[in-house]
Amino acid sequence: MNKTALLSLSLSLLAMACTPGRQAGNNRQIIIQEQGSFAAGGTVIKNPGTFDPCKPTPDGQTFSGDHAYVFYQVPANARKYPLVMWHGIGQFSKTWETTPDGREGYQNIFLRRRFGVYILDQPRRGDASRSTVAATINPTPDEQQWFGVFRLGIWPNYFDGVQFARDTNTLNQYFRQMIPNIGPIDIAVTTDAASALFTKIGPAILVTHSHAGGMGWLTAVKNQNVKAIVSYEPGSGFLFPEGEVPEPIAMTGGSLAAVGIPMAQFMALTKIPIIIYYGDNIPDKPSDNPGTDGWRARLEMARRWRDVVNKHGGDVKVIHLPEVGLKGNTHFPFSDLNNIAVADLMSAWLNEKKLDN
Amino acid sequence: MNKTALLSLSLSLLAMACTPGRQAGNNRQIIIQEQGSFAAGGTVIKNPGTFDPCKPTPDGQTFSGDHAYVFYQVPANARKYPLVMWHGIGQFSKTWETTPDGREGYQNIFLRRRFGVYILDQPRRGDASRSTVAATINPTPDEQQWFGVFRLGIWPNYFDGVQFARDTNTLNQYFRQMIPNIGPIDIAVTTDAASALFTKIGPAILVTHSHAGGMGWLTAVKNQNVKAIVSYEPGSGFLFPEGEVPEPIAMTGGSLAAVGIPMAQFMALTKIPIIIYYGDNIPDKPSDNPGTDGWRARLEMARRWRDVVNKHGGDVKVIHLPEVGLKGNTHFPFSDLNNIAVADLMSAWLNEKKLDN
Repeated sequence: MNKTALLSLSLSLLAMACTPGRQAGNNRQIIIQEQGSFAAGGTVIKNPGTFDPCKPTPDGQTFSGDHAYVFYQVPANARKYPLVMWHGIGQFSKTWETTPDGREGYQNIFLRRRFGVYILDQPRRGDASRSTVAATINPTPDEQQWFGVFRLGIWPNYFDGVQFARDTNTLNQYFRQMIPNIGPIDIAVTTDAASALFTKIGPAILVTHSHAGGMGWLTAVKNQNVKAIVSYEPGSGFLFPEGEVPEPIAMTGGSLAAVGIPMAQFMALTKIPIIIYYGDNIPDKPSDNPGTDGWRARLEMARRWRDVVNKHGGDVKVIHLPEVGLKGNTHFPFSDLNNIAVADLMSAWLNEKKLDN
Repeated sequence: MNKTALLSLSLSLLAMACTPGRQAGNNRQIIIQEQGSFAAGGTVIKNPGTFDPCKPTPDGQTFSGDHAYVFYQVPANARKYPLVMWHGIGQFSKTWETTPDGREGYQNIFLRRRFGVYILDQPRRGDASRSTVAATINPTPDEQQWFGVFRLGIWPNYFDGVQFARDTNTLNQYFRQMIPNIGPIDIAVTTDAASALFTKIGPAILVTHSHAGGMGWLTAVKNQNVKAIVSYEPGSGFLFPEGEVPEPIAMTGGSLAAVGIPMAQFMALTKIPIIIYYGDNIPDKPSDNPGTDGWRARLEMARRWRDVVNKHGGDVKVIHLPEVGLKGNTHFPFSDLNNIAVADLMSAWLNEKKLDN
């Protein structure tokens, strides 16, 4: 091989190594400094009476429930603030793990970016299903409806250009990401457990999805260790100062109400940077498609909320992804086909806010 | 600092680095080649009728459930056969993760020993709680009873020398490891899902706990990718050839029955190496303590089973841990205070059987 050929080969190898998304071999390893799991928060019920070990009945026994379950990983050379990832309605930790089509989700993506990652199952869900309240659960067929609400398309058709793989195995994995609540979702219970997590681990950045959006605001009100919030498609529970609560926003099949809290509590939300992202295929005007129309109302409410928080000195930004060039995102931008680009936006914001030291 | 002092300091640092259990810095890192999660197996219910996206009802919709949920990690330079870890009754993946007192469990221990680790939540449990059958769940206080059945002691007293930390936070974490079934445990459903996992990942070693013991034997009957089984305190479901099923063994509060299967199926269990471990504080003779007496019956049944499998050409070993010098183990030897020694026994057996290449 002459020198020119050798140089050419070297340049080829260099080009391969530098091609985004084609990292090979050891570049793909994740070095974990520490990983594990624990229960955070929760309560204990104590039955009256005396426990008899030889003739056990519920008398005198305890029941510990309503905690969150947390699995965490801290990479080598971790950045200062870890990320706490909180799933949405009917979901669990899977939201952030392997995507339905088998790619890496936010868990791995942000471990690679040297963030500690704490993923929770909220109280009464999944691995935190030791609920202190009774529940009856029925397997009600609902997947075609979620296909619409999660904005994959209008069953059985996908939206043009939707960032979701169209094979049946992907859809099979996606539907199996949903699990039931064991008893009602109790906002005080879930936010107490999330707050207990922040008390245990110290200052961290909260990343919420959908129904966890509103619970995330409330967790930040409860605990100053919430240093920032990244919220994907928050669904409900926007907290306004009492006296400044907007009228509910009408949407197909109902309306979206806001929540009033005392000004002293509200002000906590003006002290931290917050960014909100919504995906694509959200109608501009009222639509008779209940799958998408709710998201029009929520995006509108998020913008009203941004304006009120910022008026009181806050730092809230609302990004409608198509407006910044990311098209086709569903209700799950962090696991969509373009989730690296979605994560890049989040990384840039964390950098801008000096949250990635 | 003079040369002697410098040498002395260097030797001190060297000594610190070499003290067992005090590995510092990079020695404690786990290098992950790949990690993620997926649903394995399961079924789909389809409701009759036609789905209308604009007026959704359950008509024409599907429900995908009864799969196992699996979180896996493959370390760098992994050994040939990964470990599939299957929790016991009322438990989930937590069984194998951080111990109740905050040390590393089998997940980390065996990643460090270069095994791929697949941990499942069985169908209708935890993160696999999308059950195809209806369920009513009541939070019944039961923790003092489990304290006895899991052989920590006789409430409120711990057994002398029990391998379990006695602080309240440990017990709090321990009790929160229990979660409900969403609907009845269906052995065909759980073993079908476990078998689907082995079909997906290929040859692997199954590690079971307690109630998963019997389901583990059945999974090996169903799937030849089960290359070996390590079973901690199997509780029920010992499979004998029809015609060779022993009488039930009486125990306080009931009896322990064995299960008959056709000889052709049974013979699968003679083709793979199997090791069974039981912990300490199991009575030799019938006892009126229902917390411990069941384990006497199960240990006796395990030995009968060993003899029958081995008579037909199998390779089953039953280890009662106190007999090999490990004292004080509970129903959870793999998370007990001496779990490194317990893991060392397992590693030695895997090595003896050439399962750790």
